[in-house]
Amino acid sequence: MRVGIVGGGQLGRMLALAGHRLGISCITLDPAAHSPASQVGPAIVGAYDDQGSLTALAAASDVATYEFENVPVDSARFLAERVPVYPPHEALEAAQDRLAEKALFADAGIESAPFAAVGDVAGLYRAIAEIGLPAVMKTRRLGYDGKGQVVIDDDARVEEAWRSVGAAPSILEPRVPFDRELSILGVRDRKGATAFYPLVENEHRDGMLRVSVAPAPGLTPDLQERVERHARAVMERLGYVGVLAIELFEVGDDLLANEMAPRVHNSGHWTIDGASTSQFENHLRAVTGLPLGPTDARSHAAMVNIVGDEPDLGALLKATPDARVHLYGKQARSDRKLGHVTVLGEDAEELSEKLLQVRSFSPDVSP
Amino acid sequence: MRVGIVGGGQLGRMLALAGHRLGISCITLDPAAHSPASQVGPAIVGAYDDQGSLTALAAASDVATYEFENVPVDSARFLAERVPVYPPHEALEAAQDRLAEKALFADAGIESAPFAAVGDVAGLYRAIAEIGLPAVMKTRRLGYDGKGQVVIDDDARVEEAWRSVGAAPSILEPRVPFDRELSILGVRDRKGATAFYPLVENEHRDGMLRVSVAPAPGLTPDLQERVERHARAVMERLGYVGVLAIELFEVGDDLLANEMAPRVHNSGHWTIDGASTSQFENHLRAVTGLPLGPTDARSHAAMVNIVGDEPDLGALLKATPDARVHLYGKQARSDRKLGHVTVLGEDAEELSEKLLQVRSFSPDVSP
Repeated sequence: MRVGIVGGGQLGRMLALAGHRLGISCITLDPAAHSPASQVGPAIVGAYDDQGSLTALAAASDVATYEFENVPVDSARFLAERVPVYPPHEALEAAQDRLAEKALFADAGIESAPFAAVGDVAGLYRAIAEIGLPAVMKTRRLGYDGKGQVVIDDDARVEEAWRSVGAAPSILEPRVPFDRELSILGVRDRKGATAFYPLVENEHRDGMLRVSVAPAPGLTPDLQERVERHARAVMERLGYVGVLAIELFEVGDDLLANEMAPRVHNSGHWTIDGASTSQFENHLRAVTGLPLGPTDARSHAAMVNIVGDEPDLGALLKATPDARVHLYGKQARSDRKLGHVTVLGEDAEELSEKLLQVRSFSPDVSP
Repeated sequence: MRVGIVGGGQLGRMLALAGHRLGISCITLDPAAHSPASQVGPAIVGAYDDQGSLTALAAASDVATYEFENVPVDSARFLAERVPVYPPHEALEAAQDRLAEKALFADAGIESAPFAAVGDVAGLYRAIAEIGLPAVMKTRRLGYDGKGQVVIDDDARVEEAWRSVGAAPSILEPRVPFDRELSILGVRDRKGATAFYPLVENEHRDGMLRVSVAPAPGLTPDLQERVERHARAVMERLGYVGVLAIELFEVGDDLLANEMAPRVHNSGHWTIDGASTSQFENHLRAVTGLPLGPTDARSHAAMVNIVGDEPDLGALLKATPDARVHLYGKQARSDRKLGHVTVLGEDAEELSEKLLQVRSFSPDVSP
């Protein structure tokens, strides 16, 4: 079985590595010549909207998928005329536009933060009058890792904020005073069977995920069940196949959906070492028509992203010999995710100790 | 860090996959153009004794190692003049000649089966007079997976047996009525620190490993400690760096060393899914100068080799959704190891059930 993947970043790389184990051969398409995925398997170097490259990808694949949500929808459609593509392009369309995403959440009965659409400066003033300050403006399209977002604290900064997002169509939301950020990862196979990983607690800094703890501390069966119901509703509405991530804010007893990613997700990296089946394997099992694997946590797990600089591997493994290091084969650059480290613990206490050790090697999240 | 590996079979492949995670780039040398390892990373196609290929491998490596014990010792020496090579070639020399291996075991205070060297038919008759029948004749060199071995049951078959091993220098051992076969995997780093995986119980058929169970049922701390002491003695005598496997026969309360492999080993494949650190990662950590990872079993594990035919993956994963499948990217051929499946259990009972399920997909070892 051959799987074509649009995108050759770390997610494509970890999909390809999971594929090697299962005898599933992944081929990636990425404009970069030395993408992380190209180091572990065959790769096509080309633009995501280049029809020649897409044709070559389809010809080398029995089924196609993608590792990021900003794949041009036209490219997904072009591929789908040649080879089955999962998840469906409807999921891409919803994930690429915050307005469509809000509508999908509402449609599936999931609460998200109140918002107002913004098309110009005058509209931004109207939105502020409606939503109040402080508020967060987010571009409708092409936001990731905190990009395309700006916090507006006071009226004097309105026009500056508008310029800072490139005067792009946006939405304005109140700044949600959330207690914590959670995410759920679910997977749905080609026959409609679903499975869900335990909820994860996430820590962001500068809009970028830094630390995930799984299962989320204090997770109750009730909360898990409630969020699974929401995620299942979204997946069924989309005829979804593959792994889907939904990020949520926990505010008191309320849950507000923040955004979704129709792909494997950074907050699921712990599953490689900590779950019975990794998100990468389950995504491949789903899109290739294999039965899903169990999604239970085998222990308590925490993941720390390596951002900007690679730590001294020898020192890290000396301090925490059982740290599970995953590097992506990228050139170091500030604000770039270069890898992640997962630690496992029999209980929450053992996990906290190890997490503290690993944080101390990662300046951005050191305690 | 770049590691050159002589041999591109499944062991080289699984080393390369472990390397990708750690940001260690492995390059393999193998005469086959589509070797298992070449599918997951860079590979040089060339003979193991081709100086041009070895020079290219050394140039592309910071350190070199090997995945099989029949690497020509001259090739290991040639490499060692250009780049550090671990394990040391003394380990290759001992592993390539059953006489040298016997001497090493004796030297390290480890018991093995009594034996007599055989150089010709007359010598074989003398050896039989000394050892008795039934006996096993094993060629001194180039035996693996049961090849180069013949059981001699009665005197009438002596000359046929001698021809069947190609009249090659051999040893004759009594047929040991062992209770079970065990193996220990140890790893020693460049500073001399050692770590040992729990003893494994192995089931062979036609000389080929079929099933491993880890930890070995009924394993006592006493037995573990005794075998570790033996393995450590061998490693220290050789100035060993990397993973070393020793196979043993358990006969009542006695342990008889059978043979050693100076490399990662089939009976250690369970460590990928069942141990805190896999044998592949620990081998790479050892040879690249990183600290060793913990070798404890995270649960009970059993590994079943896939030999000859690939099972129906969908059916296998439907029956045992948490089976951990590892395929090697090889063409199917009878008596060829195409992959392995690992199952994990909280306890011995859960493990037995899953093992039974997986065996039923593998005709050669079905119950």
